[in-house]
Amino acid sequence: MAVYTEVPDEELAGFLADYDAGTLLSFKGIAEGVENTNYIVHTDRGSYILTLYEKRVDPQDLPFFLDLMEHLSDKGVTCPVPLHDRKGQALSTLCGRPAALMTFLEGVWVRKPHVEHCRALGSTMAAMHKAALDFSGERRNALSVDDWRPIFASVADRADTLQAGLAEEMEAEITFLEANWPEDLPTGIIHADMFPDNVFFLNSRLSGIIDFYFACRDALAYDIAVCLNAWCFEPDLSFNVTKARAMLTAYAGRRRLTDAEYAAMPLLARGAAMRFFVTRLYDWLNHPPGAFVRPKDPLEYAKRIRFHRSVGSTGEYGLD
Amino acid sequence: MAVYTEVPDEELAGFLADYDAGTLLSFKGIAEGVENTNYIVHTDRGSYILTLYEKRVDPQDLPFFLDLMEHLSDKGVTCPVPLHDRKGQALSTLCGRPAALMTFLEGVWVRKPHVEHCRALGSTMAAMHKAALDFSGERRNALSVDDWRPIFASVADRADTLQAGLAEEMEAEITFLEANWPEDLPTGIIHADMFPDNVFFLNSRLSGIIDFYFACRDALAYDIAVCLNAWCFEPDLSFNVTKARAMLTAYAGRRRLTDAEYAAMPLLARGAAMRFFVTRLYDWLNHPPGAFVRPKDPLEYAKRIRFHRSVGSTGEYGLD
Repeated sequence: MAVYTEVPDEELAGFLADYDAGTLLSFKGIAEGVENTNYIVHTDRGSYILTLYEKRVDPQDLPFFLDLMEHLSDKGVTCPVPLHDRKGQALSTLCGRPAALMTFLEGVWVRKPHVEHCRALGSTMAAMHKAALDFSGERRNALSVDDWRPIFASVADRADTLQAGLAEEMEAEITFLEANWPEDLPTGIIHADMFPDNVFFLNSRLSGIIDFYFACRDALAYDIAVCLNAWCFEPDLSFNVTKARAMLTAYAGRRRLTDAEYAAMPLLARGAAMRFFVTRLYDWLNHPPGAFVRPKDPLEYAKRIRFHRSVGSTGEYGLD
Repeated sequence: MAVYTEVPDEELAGFLADYDAGTLLSFKGIAEGVENTNYIVHTDRGSYILTLYEKRVDPQDLPFFLDLMEHLSDKGVTCPVPLHDRKGQALSTLCGRPAALMTFLEGVWVRKPHVEHCRALGSTMAAMHKAALDFSGERRNALSVDDWRPIFASVADRADTLQAGLAEEMEAEITFLEANWPEDLPTGIIHADMFPDNVFFLNSRLSGIIDFYFACRDALAYDIAVCLNAWCFEPDLSFNVTKARAMLTAYAGRRRLTDAEYAAMPLLARGAAMRFFVTRLYDWLNHPPGAFVRPKDPLEYAKRIRFHRSVGSTGEYGLD
């Protein structure tokens, strides 16, 4: 949570003049978002989000992300969309950084999701997957099975400082995942980071999805697996099968899951947990002492991996 | 700039239910304010600021600050005002902290104030001083002449790590200020921290003043002296006499300055610079390595003190 780039008032006024977005009334940096700098901008037309893309986002990927949000929104999936400036561009520059002015999405992210939130998530995720089927953009998942080993290897020698035996356990886990990762599942555009803080609700109704900056083409069921990890564990890391069942059933009600997808779910969930384990471990062991962003505990994901490893069949996730 | 307290969605919804402020649409932590945690809250009625008062604010002082903002607003000085909850209280509790829901003030603070901004500031400051004349609240200035020595003394042994000779120079300066501080100037309620980031403009018109959490009873001219320091130096720390003249003339056009106030201005400006020097020096030498807030350079205020020391008469500030 940080504002990496301080935007001066005069530069913002000049930037806004390139858009048909009204006159600036106020702007304030938001203490959210680990990757980018975000401001809430009020004009006499309404509220907007100004995003400045910082180092961790590859500028080459930005057209994919912005086009995807426009595509999804056009198809009825509520998400922020970039305004186009007077030259027709969605992507601009501000304070030397790529920048976009986005519509503001009202809604609140739910700190403690209930069963009905998981159900709404499953349904909207399926709708999003279907809406993106004819999206032409391409971006590979830069944090998939082949990417976990190099990230892990760069910090493995210090992993046991968190827990004895962790390096050996996770190295074996990665070897297993590499050997068994399913390759023939239905693919499409996935969000790949649909954690509760990226899904907004209003009065228990899902009102929109934000933060598509990990979106990519991958197995659709992998997106579900990310959400099993992010939504269905209780704070004590027990697995809530009622939430998982609600999510999966709602998803399947809108997009039928194949037998192969059902069968692969425990493995995909192990892999999704590994993806967050390795990046969190890396951030944990590499964050500078004075950093604004407090790193998240990687061991929460080691525990999730162990849970998924213990799952005998997809039925244990609430699927028949 | 930090969010010290993370407010969960359910706790905020419960808090808002105590007010007649509409239904929650969204809330986001703002990366502004060194002392408190602030959220922008959108409801179906409009925008609000939610402030949670953190450790550096004495809860005993909060009624003074909130009453003052209501008093000033009633008298036509635009500033945020606290909403009253259904029990009539302006001050409530959220996440274990004193909290207030404030009206949202549109406006932008000016990173590089021009002459006309200084003129508007002078005029509004005088109006604010007059509007507060019949305010009954009392709060002493906790950062006035008698408070500088103990703060400085607590870090003086390390002051020379910033600049050789600094400890000796500033100790002599404090001794001089203590011996010569004017005691008989007209007093009233002052803002005491009216830096550019606390003054909002819309289209070059001053649209409001925020952050009254240093307000207190003190010499009215001391508030002007703070602003001479905060608004009239250029980034290279040269003093812009045109800005000073515009500010002082506009102020005097609304509240006549006494001869004693004119005469005391160089001394008050030295003292005001010392007030920010000692607190910045303290924060500079005491901030924890992992702190969210980057401390401000105290030497900028050492340089201001030296400038004011070199000023022979009030005429050099642009006053005749």
